[in-house]
Amino acid sequence: MEDCIFCKIVRKEVPAEIVYEDEHVVAFKDIKPVAPVHILVIPRKHIPDLTAITEDDVELMGRLHQAVVKVAEKMGVAEKGFRLVNNCKEEGGQVIYHLHFHLIGGRKFKER
Amino acid sequence: MEDCIFCKIVRKEVPAEIVYEDEHVVAFKDIKPVAPVHILVIPRKHIPDLTAITEDDVELMGRLHQAVVKVAEKMGVAEKGFRLVNNCKEEGGQVIYHLHFHLIGGRKFKER
Repeated sequence: MEDCIFCKIVRKEVPAEIVYEDEHVVAFKDIKPVAPVHILVIPRKHIPDLTAITEDDVELMGRLHQAVVKVAEKMGVAEKGFRLVNNCKEEGGQVIYHLHFHLIGGRKFKER
Repeated sequence: MEDCIFCKIVRKEVPAEIVYEDEHVVAFKDIKPVAPVHILVIPRKHIPDLTAITEDDVELMGRLHQAVVKVAEKMGVAEKGFRLVNNCKEEGGQVIYHLHFHLIGGRKFKER
């Protein structure tokens, strides 16, 4: 997608503090962190939001979650734990319409 | 797992308000909802937490997210949006050690 900011990060046209990338996924620091660790994990493929995933994306969603675990290990939160959040569409609080998961850690979260 | 409460729900040994189930996934109402829609989406397979997923679970994680979208549609929040949360391990606020995703909707969430 020409004008998508996250596609531009994937293409390295816009700078970001990338902490992990592989064939399927790019992970980079959120510019407005809400916790000591706050990473956005996104597919390279432009998928606007979670409800837009298709049969073709089944493996991709699995690979993305494998990447989340790798990022958590790299950021030092895999043992203590972290929170993974997808804000889907308007009522979910989605701001950028390129599917992304917030990996948030480094402090204790309440149960919900 | 013999004593896992969510495995017991999967096996229908413990009652739950199941709203969706398929070959891979069971989804049921959270007993302490934090929003008008609050569904737990879990794999039938006992995986203790997100960091425990293996190469064998790649397709399962994709199927689980397909199920999340189906549940969101069924609960009437797929168009307006919702939040999907995985609390991973102690600092993430995980309480039950059978992987589960909270699908929360029916009200507006802030960006983060």
